[in-house]
Amino acid sequence: SHGNNMEWNTGGKAQPSAELSGAQLIAEALRAQNVEYMFGVVGIPITEVAVAAQAAGIKYIGMRNEQAACYAASAIGYLTGRYVECCPPPPISTAEHSAVSEAASIIAHAKQPLLIIGKGASYSRAENNIRKFVDLSGLPFLPTPMAKGVVPDNHPNCVAAARSMALLHADVIILLGARLNWILHFGLPPRFRQDVKVIQIDICAEEMGNNVRPAAMLLGDINAITKQLLEEFSKRPLKYPSNSEWWKRLREKMLNNEERSKDLALQKSLPMNYYTVFHHIRELIPKDCILVSEGANTMDIGRTMLPNYHPRQRLDAGTFGTMGVGLGFAIAAALVAKDRTPEKRVICIEGDSAFGFSGMEVETICRYNLPILIIVVNNNGIYTGLDAGSWKEMLQYGDPVTSVPPVSLLPNARYEEIMSAFGGKGYFVNTPEELQNAVKASLADKRAPSLINVMIDPQSERKKQEFPWLTRSNL
Amino acid sequence: SHGNNMEWNTGGKAQPSAELSGAQLIAEALRAQNVEYMFGVVGIPITEVAVAAQAAGIKYIGMRNEQAACYAASAIGYLTGRYVECCPPPPISTAEHSAVSEAASIIAHAKQPLLIIGKGASYSRAENNIRKFVDLSGLPFLPTPMAKGVVPDNHPNCVAAARSMALLHADVIILLGARLNWILHFGLPPRFRQDVKVIQIDICAEEMGNNVRPAAMLLGDINAITKQLLEEFSKRPLKYPSNSEWWKRLREKMLNNEERSKDLALQKSLPMNYYTVFHHIRELIPKDCILVSEGANTMDIGRTMLPNYHPRQRLDAGTFGTMGVGLGFAIAAALVAKDRTPEKRVICIEGDSAFGFSGMEVETICRYNLPILIIVVNNNGIYTGLDAGSWKEMLQYGDPVTSVPPVSLLPNARYEEIMSAFGGKGYFVNTPEELQNAVKASLADKRAPSLINVMIDPQSERKKQEFPWLTRSNL
Amino acid sequence: SHGNNMEWNTGGKAQPSAELSGAQLIAEALRAQNVEYMFGVVGIPITEVAVAAQAAGIKYIGMRNEQAACYAASAIGYLTGRYVECCPPPPISTAEHSAVSEAASIIAHAKQPLLIIGKGASYSRAENNIRKFVDLSGLPFLPTPMAKGVVPDNHPNCVAAARSMALLHADVIILLGARLNWILHFGLPPRFRQDVKVIQIDICAEEMGNNVRPAAMLLGDINAITKQLLEEFSKRPLKYPSNSEWWKRLREKMLNNEERSKDLALQKSLPMNYYTVFHHIRELIPKDCILVSEGANTMDIGRTMLPNYHPRQRLDAGTFGTMGVGLGFAIAAALVAKDRTPEKRVICIEGDSAFGFSGMEVETICRYNLPILIIVVNNNGIYTGLDAGSWKEMLQYGDPVTSVPPVSLLPNARYEEIMSAFGGKGYFVNTPEELQNAVKASLADKRAPSLINVMIDPQSERKKQEFPWLTRSNL
Amino acid sequence: SHGNNMEWNTGGKAQPSAELSGAQLIAEALRAQNVEYMFGVVGIPITEVAVAAQAAGIKYIGMRNEQAACYAASAIGYLTGRYVECCPPPPISTAEHSAVSEAASIIAHAKQPLLIIGKGASYSRAENNIRKFVDLSGLPFLPTPMAKGVVPDNHPNCVAAARSMALLHADVIILLGARLNWILHFGLPPRFRQDVKVIQIDICAEEMGNNVRPAAMLLGDINAITKQLLEEFSKRPLKYPSNSEWWKRLREKMLNNEERSKDLALQKSLPMNYYTVFHHIRELIPKDCILVSEGANTMDIGRTMLPNYHPRQRLDAGTFGTMGVGLGFAIAAALVAKDRTPEKRVICIEGDSAFGFSGMEVETICRYNLPILIIVVNNNGIYTGLDAGSWKEMLQYGDPVTSVPPVSLLPNARYEEIMSAFGGKGYFVNTPEELQNAVKASLADKRAPSLINVMIDPQSERKKQEFPWLTRSNL
Repeated sequence: SHGNNMEWNTGGKAQPSAELSGAQLIAEALRAQNVEYMFGVVGIPITEVAVAAQAAGIKYIGMRNEQAACYAASAIGYLTGRYVECCPPPPISTAEHSAVSEAASIIAHAKQPLLIIGKGASYSRAENNIRKFVDLSGLPFLPTPMAKGVVPDNHPNCVAAARSMALLHADVIILLGARLNWILHFGLPPRFRQDVKVIQIDICAEEMGNNVRPAAMLLGDINAITKQLLEEFSKRPLKYPSNSEWWKRLREKMLNNEERSKDLALQKSLPMNYYTVFHHIRELIPKDCILVSEGANTMDIGRTMLPNYHPRQRLDAGTFGTMGVGLGFAIAAALVAKDRTPEKRVICIEGDSAFGFSGMEVETICRYNLPILIIVVNNNGIYTGLDAGSWKEMLQYGDPVTSVPPVSLLPNARYEEIMSAFGGKGYFVNTPEELQNAVKASLADKRAPSLINVMIDPQSERKKQEFPWLTRSNL
Repeated sequence: SHGNNMEWNTGGKAQPSAELSGAQLIAEALRAQNVEYMFGVVGIPITEVAVAAQAAGIKYIGMRNEQAACYAASAIGYLTGRYVECCPPPPISTAEHSAVSEAASIIAHAKQPLLIIGKGASYSRAENNIRKFVDLSGLPFLPTPMAKGVVPDNHPNCVAAARSMALLHADVIILLGARLNWILHFGLPPRFRQDVKVIQIDICAEEMGNNVRPAAMLLGDINAITKQLLEEFSKRPLKYPSNSEWWKRLREKMLNNEERSKDLALQKSLPMNYYTVFHHIRELIPKDCILVSEGANTMDIGRTMLPNYHPRQRLDAGTFGTMGVGLGFAIAAALVAKDRTPEKRVICIEGDSAFGFSGMEVETICRYNLPILIIVVNNNGIYTGLDAGSWKEMLQYGDPVTSVPPVSLLPNARYEEIMSAFGGKGYFVNTPEELQNAVKASLADKRAPSLINVMIDPQSERKKQEFPWLTRSNL
Repeated sequence: SHGNNMEWNTGGKAQPSAELSGAQLIAEALRAQNVEYMFGVVGIPITEVAVAAQAAGIKYIGMRNEQAACYAASAIGYLTGRYVECCPPPPISTAEHSAVSEAASIIAHAKQPLLIIGKGASYSRAENNIRKFVDLSGLPFLPTPMAKGVVPDNHPNCVAAARSMALLHADVIILLGARLNWILHFGLPPRFRQDVKVIQIDICAEEMGNNVRPAAMLLGDINAITKQLLEEFSKRPLKYPSNSEWWKRLREKMLNNEERSKDLALQKSLPMNYYTVFHHIRELIPKDCILVSEGANTMDIGRTMLPNYHPRQRLDAGTFGTMGVGLGFAIAAALVAKDRTPEKRVICIEGDSAFGFSGMEVETICRYNLPILIIVVNNNGIYTGLDAGSWKEMLQYGDPVTSVPPVSLLPNARYEEIMSAFGGKGYFVNTPEELQNAVKASLADKRAPSLINVMIDPQSERKKQEFPWLTRSNL
Repeated sequence: SHGNNMEWNTGGKAQPSAELSGAQLIAEALRAQNVEYMFGVVGIPITEVAVAAQAAGIKYIGMRNEQAACYAASAIGYLTGRYVECCPPPPISTAEHSAVSEAASIIAHAKQPLLIIGKGASYSRAENNIRKFVDLSGLPFLPTPMAKGVVPDNHPNCVAAARSMALLHADVIILLGARLNWILHFGLPPRFRQDVKVIQIDICAEEMGNNVRPAAMLLGDINAITKQLLEEFSKRPLKYPSNSEWWKRLREKMLNNEERSKDLALQKSLPMNYYTVFHHIRELIPKDCILVSEGANTMDIGRTMLPNYHPRQRLDAGTFGTMGVGLGFAIAAALVAKDRTPEKRVICIEGDSAFGFSGMEVETICRYNLPILIIVVNNNGIYTGLDAGSWKEMLQYGDPVTSVPPVSLLPNARYEEIMSAFGGKGYFVNTPEELQNAVKASLADKRAPSLINVMIDPQSERKKQEFPWLTRSNL
C-alpha cells in the first residue's frame, strides 16, 4: 500500500472520453469474467480501481488490511462454488469401474468400517448422494472440520463423539475427499490400526498413496464417484448391521463422551469453561446459521460442541491452521448470505488471540452494516494461571518487557469495546445468564453487527487427552 | 501461524537433561549473535521459542500479527544501528580523491546550489560532520523525510519551507545519501532543471547514475565522504554568500509559505484542519521525542509541520510508502527508548486509514505498558464529503454494499475506545482546546499509553499544489 | 561439475565399517525406489555416487555433459512407462457418462470428422483400444509426432499425407490426448475452420478449454475413455462411410501429395534432396526400429517420410522443439532395448546443427558399445547458398568473424570422423548408392555404433507451403 | 532452442519499410550499449536476431550449444574489462585512512608475512601498483589461479613453488582481492596457523569477515587501495629483509620442490606423466600467450607448471570449478586477441573429460578459423588402471553397461580427429619428441586451429600430497 501523495496523481482526473483508464480496464475485464465481489483496502492508490469496479457493478469491499482482504476473497470462492464462470465448468471425471468394484468389495467385507467425509465432499457438492449412501449402507461416519454438515452432525450414524475410538479401531476406512494430513494424524499408528485398509477417493492423483499405501484408489470427482458406489451397491446391496459389535462399542463410547461433555457444560462455577460456553451458544443459534471459527481450543472444542446441519456452512482455519482468517471469512459469508439467503446469520466464534490478527476488520463490518455476530471466547491468550491483579503488580515492579509471559495476552481485554467504538453492539459476559441474554439480543437484531466478549477460565479444564502427540478433538 | 491442537504437541514437555530442544538451540544461536529483541506473535507453536528466548535473556515481544512483528524488527535495526554485533563492524570506504576534488570544484562554481540530506546520512551517523559542513559552507539544504534532524529542522539553512522552489531552480544538487526515487520526483523535469548538475554521494555503486547522469559520483560511506569534503574545503575554503540572489529568493518563498501555513493553522472553524492540528501538537511535544508517522495527508503535511531536532528520531512509511508500519515502529522505538533513554517519549501520528492496518497492536502496547502516545488524525478515511447523518441514512435504504463509497471509512469511528478497551487512556477531540488538554495529559503520564482521536474536516483545505504529478509536500 | 582436487577429499577413503557413506545412502535410496538407470557425467565429485550406484545394481551411465544426461533420463521414463515403481500405480479415472454420450452424439452427426491422436495416447498405452476404435468407426485420423505408431502410419485411415487439408476442413475434431499448441497451430483459423467443433479428451483438467472452447470435454485416462467410447458405440454403432465426399477429397489429396513426394524422392540430381534421403532410409530400416529425430527440416520432413508401425518407437524434439535431445534419447532407448528387446535397433536421424548440441555423446555410445545408427542429414547448417570453395575464399580475405553468415555451419564438416575417432564406423555419403550401402552395412553389424554423414543440397527444394505462418509438415 | 518449422515464420520476411523488426530492435539496443560481441547458436529462431546484429556491426558468433555461448560471453567481460560502456564507469572507492594505517602497521610488524594476490587484482587492473608494492616491500607473494601474471610468475618474490608451506607458516596474510574459499582452504587450520592475522582487501563489504575474523579490513577498489598502501609506505618505508629466516626457509622449500618437479618432468618412461608434458609445453609456448585451462589434474598441475607473465592471460574453471568452460573461453579470447593483439596465441589445455563437455565447439573454432591451439591431456578419463586391450575384452563378455567403470572414459579416444573432421590440424602424440614437434608445428601456422591429443599414463605418479583434505596444487 502506497503513501499519500499518489492521491494527486490518480484521484479524480477526467479521462479523455474515448479512452478507458487502466482502472476501468481492470474493472471491465473482471466484470467480463462475471466477478461479483472484490476485496481491497480503502486508500490510495487502489481507490480508482475500486470506483471503477463499483461503476462496473462489482461489489467492492474496502477492508483494513490486505491480508484480511485475501482471506475474504478465498472464502467467496468456497461459498459460491465458482474456480471462474466464463470458463467452461470443469469436466467431471469418474473412477475406473474395476476400482469402484474393488472398493465395494473391501467395504462389503469390512468388520469395523468407518467413512470419513472430507472437505472435498463439500467442494464437489456431493451431499445428496453421500446422505443416500450413508442411509443405505448404514456405515458409521466422521466429518472433517469443513465437511461438517455434508451429512447433518445429528445424523444417527455420525460418530464424531467417539472420534478417537473410531479412528483407532476401524479396519476399513473410506476417505471420501478427506486427506491424511495432521488433522487426521497422517493415518498412522498409534492413532490408527497398523493393518487398517484405506480406500482413497480423491480428485487429485498426486494425493494418492500419501502417508499410507491404500487398498483401493478411486480417482475422480467425489460426487460422481459416490454415485458410482451407489450404483455398484444397487447391484450388490450393502447394509452394515446396526446391531453389530462395532456399532455397540461406538454407541457406548459416544454416550459416555456425551455425558462427560454434558457434565462439563453444566458446571456452575465461574469463570465458565469452554463446554459451558458452547453449550449455551448451541442452544440458541439457528440451525442454518453459517459458522466461522478460528483459535486454538476455541476452534477445536467448538468443532465437537457446535453441530452443522447443512453443507458449506462452516468455515474455519482449515488444513494449515492459519490464524487471522475468521473476520475475512465472516465478511465474505455475510455478503453472500445478504444477496442469496438474507435470513441466514453469520456467527463468528473466535479465540481472543486469533481475533487480534484481523480485529480491525470490525470497522469494515460496521461500515457495511453486516449483521455478523462475533463471539470472542476470551481466556486471556493461550493459557496462563495469572489473574489480573498479580499481572498489574508484576508490571509495576518487574522489567516491563521480560516479565510479560509470552504465552499470554492482556488480562480482561474488553474486545467488545472495539465493536461499540464503530457503532455496533458490544457485550461483556461473565455468566451463563449474561451469555444467554447477549446471544438472544444479538440474534434478535437482524440488521446490526455485535460482539460478545465471553470471559472464561484460563485454567478451564479440558477433557483428558488420550493421545499426547499431535492430537485434536477426541471425545 | 498454526492452529490449536499443536499445543499438546509442543507445550510443557520436559527435555532430556543433556539435550537442547530446537527452541533452545534457536534462542542460544540468536543470543550468541547478541540479538537483544525478538518479535513474534503470542500463540502456538511459537510459544516454546519465545519462552526459550526469554530464558536466554532475549526480550521477546508477542505481537498480534506477524506483519506488525516484522515492521517492529526492522525498526530495531534502524534505531540501534546494528546490520549484527558479533560480526565485525563493516569497514568504511571512502571516495577516490579525484572524485572528491571534482565534486568540490563543481560545488564551488555553483550559482544556486542545494544540498539534499538523505536517509543514508542517518544510517551512517554522519550528523556531526554534516552540521559542520552546512555551517562552514553556508549551503541551503533539504532533508528527505527520514533524514530530518540530521541537521535540526530549525537550522537557518534549512529550506524545507521552500522545497518545490529549491528543487526546481537549483543548478547544482548534492545528494548526500539521498536517492532519486519518487520522493524526489526521480530527479526529472518538470520538478528539476533540465541542466541541473547532480553530485551523487552514496554507499552503493549500483545506485550511481540511476535516473540522471551525475556530474560527479562519490562512492563510499556518507560520514567518511563528508569528512573528505570538509578536508577538501579546508584547503580551498568555501562560503556560499548568505546575501546571494538565490538565498534571497529562497528566504522570500519560505516566509511566504510559512505565512500561509500559519494562516491555515490559526483558522478557528470546526472541524479543525490538518495545519491547526499539527500546529498545536508541535507547540506541546518535547523536542527530543521520537516521531513515528504514517498515512496520506497526515504523514505528508506532518513532515513539514513537525520539526525534528535530532537524527534518527523520525520513522515513517519511507521509500515504499508502506501503510501499517506505524505501530510496529512505535513499539520498537519505545522498547529501545525504555532501555537507553527512558525520558524520551514516542509519539505516533497516524492517519485513520493507516491505523487500521495494525490497530490491534494497541493491545501489545498496553500489555507491555509502553508509554506511547498515538494520535489518530481522523478524516473518516481518505476523503469524502459525507456527514455521519447522511451516511446512516444511505445505509438504511441503499444496497448496503454498493452504496458505501470505497474512498471512505466509517464516519466518527471512535478509535480511542480501542485504547481504553485495553486499559490505556483514550481521548476524543474536536476542538483545539480539547486537543491541547489531551496532549498535555498524555505527556504528563509518563507510564501509560494513550490514544487521541482527533476529528478533522474531511474537506480540510490543503494548500494549493503547483505540481499535479506525483507531487508531495511542497510548501 | 566441480574441479579437480575434490578427488583428494572423496576418493578412495575407507568408511567406518558400520556406517554408510553419503554416496551409498543415495544409491540405496534410489535402489529402494527400483531405479534401474542413472545418468551422470564421468568425473569428480560424482564418481563416488556412480560407484555406489553400480554396487547397488543400478546401471550408471557416464555421459559427457549434464545436459545430455538429463535428456537421457527423461527418455527412460517415457520408454519404460514408470512416473516410480515403489509408488502405487496411478489410479485410472474415466469420463463422466453424460460427457461420453454427448461426445458420441457429436461424432455421430459429423459430416467431416477427424480424429487426432496425441502423445497422451502413447503415454496411456491406449493403442489396442484406439486401433479398435479406428477400425470400427472408419474415421480418418492424424497422429501428432510422438503419437505416430499408436495406429500404424500405413493404416488406410491415416490421412497424414493430407494433413493441412484435413485440419482445415474438418467440422468435428476429436483430440485423443493431443493438445492445441503450436504443433497443431493452436486450433485457430486460418488453419482450422472457424466453426469446427472440438471434442477434447485429456487427463489434465487445466488443459480443458485452452485456445478453443470445446464442444465436449472428457476428463480422464485416454485408454479408459477410448474404452468408454467403444462401449458407447457398441450401443449405437457408428460407421463413417468410406465412400463419403470427405473421404474422397482426402484420398485425392493424399494421392496427389504422395506423388509429389515420390517425384522429389526419385530425383537423380546430386547433392541429394531430403526426400531422396528419407526414401532410401525408409526402404532399408526395419519396421520395428526405434526412431529418434531432431533438427529443423530433418525432423519435419522425416515425420512424414519415415513411418512408424508401433507405439512409443519415435522420440523427437517434442512440444518445445528442444535441440540437443537426440543422442541422450538414443542412448536411453538403446539401453532399454538392450535389456528388453535386444533385436530392436535404434536409429537416430539428426540435422547437422542439432547434432552439434550434444555430439560428444558419441564417445558415450562407443564406450558402452551401443549399436546405435546415427544418420546426420548434413545441409551445412540451416540454410545457405554457399559452396565450400567460395566459403574458404571468403574466409581468406574478409573479416574472419563478421564475414561468416550466422545462418550456416562449416561446409563439408566430416561428422562421421567423430564416430571413427572413438572406434565406431563412420560413413561419408554423397549418392543414393553410397547411402544404401552405408545403411545396409550399419544394420548388418548388430554390435557396433555407426554414423552416416549424408551430404545434401543446402538449397534442397522443399514442397511448396500453403501456409506461411507457423506451419509444419503439410503434405 | 526451438525446432524446425519456425523457419517459415521468421525467415526472410520483408518488414514494412517504416518499421523495425523485433530482431532489429534488439540489435540496435545492444549496439547503443556498445555491445561488440554476441554469442548464440546457429539456427532457428535466433537467426533473425543474428543477422540483425551483424547488420548493426555487432560480431555475432554462432556456437554449437547455448552453454558454451554463455561461457564465451562471460569471458569477454573479463578480458575487455567492461561490466557496460554506455553506463558511467563505476566510481572508485578507497579504504578509510585509519584502516590503511592499521594494515600498514600490522604488515610492518609481521615476522613471516605473505601477500596473496587474487582475481580481484586482475579485474581492477592493479598490476602496475602491485608490482611496485612487491618490489618496494620485498614481501613474498602467491597468486590465486586467475591472478597469475598480475606480477610475473618468475618474479623472485613469487613463492608459488612453496605454496603449502607459505600458507601454513605465515603469521600475517594480506588478501589483495583474494577470497578465502575452497581454493584457499577457507583460511582455516590445518592449512593455516591458528593465530594468523589476515588483512582483507576487497571491493565487496559482504565478503568481509567470511570464514576468518580479519585483523584489518580495507574496503574499496583494489588498485586504489594498493596506491593508498604505497603512499602510506612512502611515509614509513617498509622493506622486508630478503635475508630473513622466513625467506631462507621459503627459498629452500622452493628449491626442493622445483627439483622434484624437474625429476618428474625429465622421466623418460612412456606413457609420459603430467610433469613431462607441461615441461615441454612450457619450453615452447610464447610468454605472452593466453592460457585457458580446465580439467582435474590437468588444470591443477598446469597451474604450477605453466607460468604467466602478464595479467588477465589465464582463464580457468575458477571459483566454482565448472567443467566445460574451456572452449567458450578460448573462443572469446581468440576473438578479442584477433581484434586487439593479433600476434597473441590462445592455448587451451584441457583434460580429456573436461573437453567432452563442449567439444563440438571445435567446429565453431574451425568455422571462424580461429588459430587456437587445443592440447588435450588424455589420461582416458579421470583415473583407471585399465589398458585398452582388457577394456575391449571386458566389453566383449560382460554386461555392456555395468561392466564399464564409471571412473573412466573410452581408452585411446582420438580427440584430434574431431579437429581434423572440421579441417583443422590434429596430432596424436605419445612421446616427448612427438609433443615437441606438434607444438612447434601448431604455433608455426598462425592462421589455423589445431588440436594435440597427448596420451599420458593414467597411473601417472603425482607428487605426494601433504594434506589430504580439499588440497590443491601444493608444491
